[in-house]
Amino acid sequence: MKTYNVAVVGATGAVGRTMLKILEERSFPVKNILPLASARSAGQKIEFRGKAYEVEEAKPSAFEGIDIALFSAGKDVSLELAPEAVKRGAVVVDNSNAFRMEPEVPLVVPEVNPQDLKKHRGLIANPNCSTIQMVMVLKPIHDRARVKRVVVSTYQAVSGTGLEAVEELKLQSQQVILGLETTLRVYPHRIAFNLLPHIDVFDDTGYSLEEWKMVRETKKIMGDESIQVTATTVRVPVFNCHSESVNVETWEKIAPEEARQILSKAPGVVVMDDPKNTIYPMPAYLSGRDEVFVGRIREDFTVPCGLNLWIVADNLRRGAAYNAVRICESLVEYNLV
Amino acid sequence: MKTYNVAVVGATGAVGRTMLKILEERSFPVKNILPLASARSAGQKIEFRGKAYEVEEAKPSAFEGIDIALFSAGKDVSLELAPEAVKRGAVVVDNSNAFRMEPEVPLVVPEVNPQDLKKHRGLIANPNCSTIQMVMVLKPIHDRARVKRVVVSTYQAVSGTGLEAVEELKLQSQQVILGLETTLRVYPHRIAFNLLPHIDVFDDTGYSLEEWKMVRETKKIMGDESIQVTATTVRVPVFNCHSESVNVETWEKIAPEEARQILSKAPGVVVMDDPKNTIYPMPAYLSGRDEVFVGRIREDFTVPCGLNLWIVADNLRRGAAYNAVRICESLVEYNLV
Repeated sequence: MKTYNVAVVGATGAVGRTMLKILEERSFPVKNILPLASARSAGQKIEFRGKAYEVEEAKPSAFEGIDIALFSAGKDVSLELAPEAVKRGAVVVDNSNAFRMEPEVPLVVPEVNPQDLKKHRGLIANPNCSTIQMVMVLKPIHDRARVKRVVVSTYQAVSGTGLEAVEELKLQSQQVILGLETTLRVYPHRIAFNLLPHIDVFDDTGYSLEEWKMVRETKKIMGDESIQVTATTVRVPVFNCHSESVNVETWEKIAPEEARQILSKAPGVVVMDDPKNTIYPMPAYLSGRDEVFVGRIREDFTVPCGLNLWIVADNLRRGAAYNAVRICESLVEYNLV
Repeated sequence: MKTYNVAVVGATGAVGRTMLKILEERSFPVKNILPLASARSAGQKIEFRGKAYEVEEAKPSAFEGIDIALFSAGKDVSLELAPEAVKRGAVVVDNSNAFRMEPEVPLVVPEVNPQDLKKHRGLIANPNCSTIQMVMVLKPIHDRARVKRVVVSTYQAVSGTGLEAVEELKLQSQQVILGLETTLRVYPHRIAFNLLPHIDVFDDTGYSLEEWKMVRETKKIMGDESIQVTATTVRVPVFNCHSESVNVETWEKIAPEEARQILSKAPGVVVMDDPKNTIYPMPAYLSGRDEVFVGRIREDFTVPCGLNLWIVADNLRRGAAYNAVRICESLVEYNLV
């Protein structure tokens, strides 16, 4: 069996650590692993398959001899180093927003549009976490009834911001309970027992970049520019797993019962929908899972063809690291690396 | 000045306590206050205008000589005792769901449909908390551009469930932080660092009663059965103040800037909308306020005439106790009591 030299850029971050864990869990055919990070984090030790590795500084020469480079160190690092990795013969799977909307860069959820991998030119983009879990549920509905318009409101966990945000939620929660003043380091306002309708930067339309990502990436991944999406993205005091309230209008009628059947057969999707018995997806109980969970499937009676859905997934795994590793697996399977 | 004998039923609960506080704050012309509660809570002491009162058992005879009775002790108590209070000459303002959809019972938000008070027959219903804050923002938009369809997702605080739920969130949060098992008493699942897409009971459509309340009450308060509403209601780990992501389609076009202007002049509404400077309504900072706060006002580009809004209000005050006291004030003003 062919094996690969794999670099993970951002190996000390929340997503980078999860990427290493998933490569290990899924026995990805790694010949050598190379954990990379900023100069600041270089020298730290990470573990892979029971062996300790020293994190090296991410710089162009580090990618010599690398077959696959997984990037999750932010947009600026990707902009600078991903082309250098490609130049040296690596296939890059980039988790940042740097290249997602470039026409020649495939933006891939392997369960939705694996065929797009075939046109890669060395660089594949991993979609935004909130988008991945939504399109995995929308795609089977689109195939059956054609999606016309989506109104989504998100409930996003702090792990999406990074490990320091997880610590901030923990610390601030203690401070609030003890009646102490809260320390603000990561977010502009307190996140403990609060909600911030603010994810990424705002533009002149009043939308945040996170909201635009959901609009634009959905069309690209689904391969249908006619799909209309409007989004409101909100940070909530949950450690891990993003949740979404999704209203879908379709061109053809699809009853909730049929939607449940279709979704229960969809790859990577689990239907969890028996609210009378208090069964619905909840973020606190789905951490560590790689599937997308959907419940609260109901007819929207205000339009001729509509559904309401509640979608939850582990944003670090399904929304980032697992999706990236699945892209690597598909590349191997299709002989594209 | 005329003064009134006022009974508060459910005086030891979260909303009842707030009702007493607001009657006091707003110097409502109370002649005598009568705090009532279940036999279990009778004997407890509450304070009103610096004087201690013993809580008495709520029973039919307690309403003799009462002019105004504020009910907030759940549907069953209202069904049993509100008619008894009315029979004895009291005007009842009922915060439960018992009578809201009765055609002859006015369902009133004083800033939206005060005129409906005029047809009361002794009983006025206070709307659901989530509905009140939404219609206060929708009404000025409706008057200008006619609301066609609303898709709302809520982020509701635990105080709406009651004081014991506030304690549960506090206790469970400590348990999670300390790595202990969580105690479940009020909610069917853990609420700390979690989300429950479950408020009130579910019916065969898959909707919860809270969701149906938002659909039905909005039409009744706005006096327009043509307004389409679909809702997803979610409990979040926030102590107080409900938040809502509201997508509104209108019949006529209204630009975000005009919506901001109209809303900034609307009674009881405060526009808080400068996201680039991290200004938007947040529940943790709006507890104790009686206004409804709206921000993230943006055009919805997926329909010819649409807006996205983010609405936050103190559910115990604006969504319950303050609204009820404002109803009492309007009754006095219009000579209806």
